[in-house]
Amino acid sequence: MGKILIFGHKNPDTDSITSSIVLANLERALGKDAEACRLGKINKETEYVLNYLGIEAPRLLEDVEDGQEVMLVDHASNKESIDNLENSTILKIVDHHKVALNTAYPLYYRAEPVGCTETILYKLYQENGVEIDKKIATLMLSAIISDTLLFKSPTCTKEDVEIANQLAQIAGIDCNTYGLEMLKAGTDLSEFSIEEILNLDAKEIDLKSVKSIIAQVNTASIDDVMKMKMDLEAGMQKTISEKGLDLFMLLITDIVNSNSQTIALGKRVDLVEKTYGVTLENNTALLKGVVSRKKQVVPVLTENA
Amino acid sequence: MGKILIFGHKNPDTDSITSSIVLANLERALGKDAEACRLGKINKETEYVLNYLGIEAPRLLEDVEDGQEVMLVDHASNKESIDNLENSTILKIVDHHKVALNTAYPLYYRAEPVGCTETILYKLYQENGVEIDKKIATLMLSAIISDTLLFKSPTCTKEDVEIANQLAQIAGIDCNTYGLEMLKAGTDLSEFSIEEILNLDAKEIDLKSVKSIIAQVNTASIDDVMKMKMDLEAGMQKTISEKGLDLFMLLITDIVNSNSQTIALGKRVDLVEKTYGVTLENNTALLKGVVSRKKQVVPVLTENA
Repeated sequence: MGKILIFGHKNPDTDSITSSIVLANLERALGKDAEACRLGKINKETEYVLNYLGIEAPRLLEDVEDGQEVMLVDHASNKESIDNLENSTILKIVDHHKVALNTAYPLYYRAEPVGCTETILYKLYQENGVEIDKKIATLMLSAIISDTLLFKSPTCTKEDVEIANQLAQIAGIDCNTYGLEMLKAGTDLSEFSIEEILNLDAKEIDLKSVKSIIAQVNTASIDDVMKMKMDLEAGMQKTISEKGLDLFMLLITDIVNSNSQTIALGKRVDLVEKTYGVTLENNTALLKGVVSRKKQVVPVLTENA
Repeated sequence: MGKILIFGHKNPDTDSITSSIVLANLERALGKDAEACRLGKINKETEYVLNYLGIEAPRLLEDVEDGQEVMLVDHASNKESIDNLENSTILKIVDHHKVALNTAYPLYYRAEPVGCTETILYKLYQENGVEIDKKIATLMLSAIISDTLLFKSPTCTKEDVEIANQLAQIAGIDCNTYGLEMLKAGTDLSEFSIEEILNLDAKEIDLKSVKSIIAQVNTASIDDVMKMKMDLEAGMQKTISEKGLDLFMLLITDIVNSNSQTIALGKRVDLVEKTYGVTLENNTALLKGVVSRKKQVVPVLTENA
């Protein structure tokens, strides 16, 4: 069947890109023919990491051939994966998200409710006795810092922190200095169109029967992003019409102060108000302490939907 | 939240029952308050194992309260789990089947395409440095022998065999002698009604849009079971009407010679004929070498559905 293709989710973030590279490296060390791929454009934060290491981005994958063997990292969801995923054979999943996938066959599935896929991959390296070199350690560490917003997200576990510290030693990196630089690189929106900003980290999610997109943008200044509010709203409204959404929720997340300003549109914005006990004024509200879509948004909205 | 409840699938087999006990024991060793439960009647084979060890069957669970914390073993499927599973919080899944479950939250998911859940649990004991005593080893070994039909099923991997050998040493058991006794105990159908036989190990499965039940009965003599053919067919036809099934496929599996006689009823029996290149005569055909529903039935029928 040839090479096993390994990829993370659409709209790839640093975890999806680095985990593909890191798992491909592990599989090759174990004698498999594996290649890291990606399902979308590299974001600014990930670009910072790849440039720091002088590594090229994985190959962009548009679709997979029938029967192609694949491994998924950082997602376990048809919606967030390659369009014709059902034609492929999934050999392995390494993930830290909810389960939203059905297969007709058993596979290797390793998920843990930790902050980052790399935390699990670190353990797989250990279990298989495969060495983690400086480059791999830097990739892993970057993703942990990214997913946990420098350990401040409620998704961050003790294990993420412990493993990040181990990795920082191997990589010879100071987490705070490197991490802040990296996160700030990711907040640079200057080159993006409104449409691109809304798509940087957007997830299509059915909250029970409520057809939704929940998008997130990290920033060091909420005010700066809110200057684009009118344009963002127009873009969101366009997507709502095109995709027949019930809800489009944008989270503008302040990575320094750990809050999110939300802009919410669609006929089910009541779900946002009810869930967070806020009143949307001009379609927006501050959600204090909310930084994690996975932990502080999706499950509570689903419960109230 | 109190005790974590751990259970396998409905119509529990030896793997589902023993894995509940074995995982509960591991969780307790790791400081959690956990109780093994079951979702149905203990079968004859499992009864043999529990009697051999002088262990009581886990508690029968009818439903779970809202927010109950649970762990699933030997299944990852809403359909095969407790009816109101969606009200519970799944903390952990240890399984070796396909993925057929959706959650709104991340969890610990450990699945591998091996022959038996216990093979994975053995590794979890090792990884956590928890001792496997004689009783736990016997439970684990029994399930591996059961699921792999004494290592003859195509689902059986090298890892299952290696771990079974380790466990046999700890348990002080000869696999062949003990295993054949145990498997034969499971083929004793004398106490069961037709309805009970059809439900001993029945799985409701949607093969794409084909609503199906695939049931399996192990035997040392296909002829003995085929004496009940007329009654079995009447029972199957009744279930087809009641549940609106497209296909009811019964596998009568010869555990000594590793073949299955199938009886297939329903408007989509063409799927069985097409998949195995057989012609059903009086609703029945011999499927040579077919012993594993998971490996040799569900995926190929799904592909052709």
